[in-house]
Amino acid sequence: MFNDLPDVLKQPVDSSDGVAGMERPRKLLDSIAEDVTPLLSLARHHIVSARQFTREQIIQLVRLAAAYETSRLYIKPLSGKILITAFYEPSTRTRLSFESAWHRLGGDVMSITDANTTGIAKGESLQDVAEMFSNYGDVVVLRDSEDESVYKMTERLRIPIVNAGNGIDEHPTQALADMYALLKWKPELCCTPEGAERIRIGIIGAPSRMRTLRSFLLCLTHFSEQIEVIVINPDKDVLAADQAAELQRSGLQISVVSALQSVLPTLDVVYINSIAWVGESYERLTGDIKLGSESRLKPDAIILHPLARGVELDTSLDITAHNWYFAQARGAVFIRMALLTCITQRVSRVTDAPIAPVR
Amino acid sequence: MFNDLPDVLKQPVDSSDGVAGMERPRKLLDSIAEDVTPLLSLARHHIVSARQFTREQIIQLVRLAAAYETSRLYIKPLSGKILITAFYEPSTRTRLSFESAWHRLGGDVMSITDANTTGIAKGESLQDVAEMFSNYGDVVVLRDSEDESVYKMTERLRIPIVNAGNGIDEHPTQALADMYALLKWKPELCCTPEGAERIRIGIIGAPSRMRTLRSFLLCLTHFSEQIEVIVINPDKDVLAADQAAELQRSGLQISVVSALQSVLPTLDVVYINSIAWVGESYERLTGDIKLGSESRLKPDAIILHPLARGVELDTSLDITAHNWYFAQARGAVFIRMALLTCITQRVSRVTDAPIAPVR
Amino acid sequence: MFNDLPDVLKQPVDSSDGVAGMERPRKLLDSIAEDVTPLLSLARHHIVSARQFTREQIIQLVRLAAAYETSRLYIKPLSGKILITAFYEPSTRTRLSFESAWHRLGGDVMSITDANTTGIAKGESLQDVAEMFSNYGDVVVLRDSEDESVYKMTERLRIPIVNAGNGIDEHPTQALADMYALLKWKPELCCTPEGAERIRIGIIGAPSRMRTLRSFLLCLTHFSEQIEVIVINPDKDVLAADQAAELQRSGLQISVVSALQSVLPTLDVVYINSIAWVGESYERLTGDIKLGSESRLKPDAIILHPLARGVELDTSLDITAHNWYFAQARGAVFIRMALLTCITQRVSRVTDAPIAPVR
Repeated sequence: MFNDLPDVLKQPVDSSDGVAGMERPRKLLDSIAEDVTPLLSLARHHIVSARQFTREQIIQLVRLAAAYETSRLYIKPLSGKILITAFYEPSTRTRLSFESAWHRLGGDVMSITDANTTGIAKGESLQDVAEMFSNYGDVVVLRDSEDESVYKMTERLRIPIVNAGNGIDEHPTQALADMYALLKWKPELCCTPEGAERIRIGIIGAPSRMRTLRSFLLCLTHFSEQIEVIVINPDKDVLAADQAAELQRSGLQISVVSALQSVLPTLDVVYINSIAWVGESYERLTGDIKLGSESRLKPDAIILHPLARGVELDTSLDITAHNWYFAQARGAVFIRMALLTCITQRVSRVTDAPIAPVR
Repeated sequence: MFNDLPDVLKQPVDSSDGVAGMERPRKLLDSIAEDVTPLLSLARHHIVSARQFTREQIIQLVRLAAAYETSRLYIKPLSGKILITAFYEPSTRTRLSFESAWHRLGGDVMSITDANTTGIAKGESLQDVAEMFSNYGDVVVLRDSEDESVYKMTERLRIPIVNAGNGIDEHPTQALADMYALLKWKPELCCTPEGAERIRIGIIGAPSRMRTLRSFLLCLTHFSEQIEVIVINPDKDVLAADQAAELQRSGLQISVVSALQSVLPTLDVVYINSIAWVGESYERLTGDIKLGSESRLKPDAIILHPLARGVELDTSLDITAHNWYFAQARGAVFIRMALLTCITQRVSRVTDAPIAPVR
Repeated sequence: MFNDLPDVLKQPVDSSDGVAGMERPRKLLDSIAEDVTPLLSLARHHIVSARQFTREQIIQLVRLAAAYETSRLYIKPLSGKILITAFYEPSTRTRLSFESAWHRLGGDVMSITDANTTGIAKGESLQDVAEMFSNYGDVVVLRDSEDESVYKMTERLRIPIVNAGNGIDEHPTQALADMYALLKWKPELCCTPEGAERIRIGIIGAPSRMRTLRSFLLCLTHFSEQIEVIVINPDKDVLAADQAAELQRSGLQISVVSALQSVLPTLDVVYINSIAWVGESYERLTGDIKLGSESRLKPDAIILHPLARGVELDTSLDITAHNWYFAQARGAVFIRMALLTCITQRVSRVTDAPIAPVR
């Protein structure tokens, strides 16, 4: 009887890691010497822009993320601490990623998921809301459709805020997740550059109007001697003038090409993102560029995507070795755990090295 | 002064159990010998259909629920574990019941209460959402208006999912709550059948289009030698053909009658549910059938209702001994605690018997 | 490079208390002798009206609040307890204040933030919802646009409910937060009155239609020998007849004036609130009265406001010593911690004095 049950219900869930297991983070962890100093200097800082991160901070953050991904945490370093997630622009993916990170560190969460129910909708100023948050929580995570909101809040906050996407401006923790995936793939990037061949990173997207790319490129500037960036977009006008100037001042080699086909087989990393969300609406910014299993990728090229995806990234790639975007999404929790540990001054509770008391 | 305060504010809240106290679950607990084996085999299983439960699993689950209802839990077996409640079709009652169960076991919760704020609303596939959930939580509870959604998610999930209502198809944990109420009332049903008179269970509703009834009937098949089911509906066409065939193959005695009055005085149990919700709308499926204190019930008949109720179940019955629907609702938390304990492989932490390590 | 980062991002967040630090609550704490008896009598009580509080309860509640504000809590007195916040009328500020208080005491929270997703929207009765809450949580906090809803719930609840705003009727915990601010400013009010000059409290608002003021005035009646209340409103008809009668029976000196200018320089405390919210809409009830740094306040006068504010309270006052409204908002968390500790019978776990076991 009842033999019409699908097989998937007849056995335990396969929890074997669909995103390549522990090998990658272990390899990264082993290749970086622990140095908590760069992490300690993040204590009680707002995190609004990827410009705030140094190369050493990025490297030690991914190291701590790799430690979280490969070990079990037997303490609750954020026990008794409260996170406020204020998503005035809705996003389940990013919200859950932060909340999961905070819960895994042992803390409690209060969520605001609907801007229409808040005082802001009734005309309350962001400064007054910041005053309120300072009284009720220990850290705020904010997503808002306006570039300026997070900056306005910093004027009044007495607790750190993390920018989880401000209009088309920045999304620095997504950039950290991107860096974590990139460095797991190529831990050698963490070493002192020694004249090895540059890694070619193709970016299919519009950096001028995509916050994920804006922040990612700012992180990449710290690796400018080891990489080369090629932006691919049918619309040539995809780097803003000031953005291009800032990136070039940093020494980053960056160029723009209009067609994917000729450049694709030369790329080591393909970062693709077609959709720019602004509030409730979105625009598709990469023409009809698509990647699928039939695309002429280098055999060992990896694909990154901040997700959620549209038609630009075909599911036929999911089962290929090019798929690093699922690992990238998975790593987002661990890198956020790492950052939140630093901001809340709990680094000394989770690292091995005996270190001086913080503050 | 201020003597116009209502009396209810002048004294402590009466917390004496309005749903008959500890006697019923203790009686059930005493009547079942503990056997954790059937529970261990639920470890890390998706729970999508009531077809998945064996008779022994149902009996041991209600036993564990009764243990939870009658004792105080001094450990937090799910400490550090994260539940994701994804209610794409809104339901406060079922959501809070799951979240309360998870919290009582010591775990943390992340809620999605509005489908419009999610990536799914933006066209993200359920498979990609499942991939995300696998990274961020330990168990998912899903309610969705589409029958197929929960099945689509199982294709990609690496963590267990519990179906909390999928369209008009099934609602297996409501069925467990129903069984818990039924077996508290008649623990003898847990014993080997010995030719006692069959219990007559009347079901006022439309099993073909009500997920609660579909799942409840599947559970009842395991007690087919001890019960008889009479479906009562003015519309004779309330059992789907394949449904009737499946139930009859199991040996369940089931019939359909169109009028309540003649059969009501013969029923030991009356399960009533008039409304079928589908997404935001509902339909009333039992004509003008109503139960009230004036109804010609057997003196010791009990009434079950999955709640929320409409006019079909009059509040005049609330203070009568027929009211088992409040106990049924209360028990829903404990039976969900029992099921979640099994799925998360924590049975050995809460049971007395020394047992072999799980996995 | 990147030297265009705002200064606020280059340094740790200034967490020095923008609301005057520990001095004020310490002063209050030192001036009140601990007496837990009045607190014990709040155990397991619904809190619906400010009429329920005695003078001694208010004084001991603010003492406990001051203890919470000035100390670190090393235990989790509400560990394992579940709060249900049911905000059928949306309010982020009040909801987060309660949830923060509960989390700081170590408990878990389940939130309902959208009335449209609940059974009530589908026609479920408040009594049935109350029955559900009794099964799933340990305390309920309710905000609802209807005055009667909280009273209807008390008919069926087996767990305590706290009224967080019922229509235009009352908001008793806001009144406690107001009293906490007032008594921090003037701890002498807690002593036996000894003929000192009366403190003049000006209230800019409409007590007949503002729940915050209705509850605040009820609390003030317990200090009627030490204070004098002047309601300021261009509309003379701002005290309801029964309200005025009740307040006068208590001995409270209360009068109404129509113009602010003449009375303002005589006030020791100015409580201002212009907006009355009812559900999704609001009305402005104090004409064009505004306070700003240019207002002719007594040099040491303090301003209270329940927030969120509108144009009636200019931000130019924020940096003046008149600003006690931010301290008032901050204190709201601690006074709610105090009240919730009492309701849940956990006073003995957090106080120093050895006391008899509760219940």
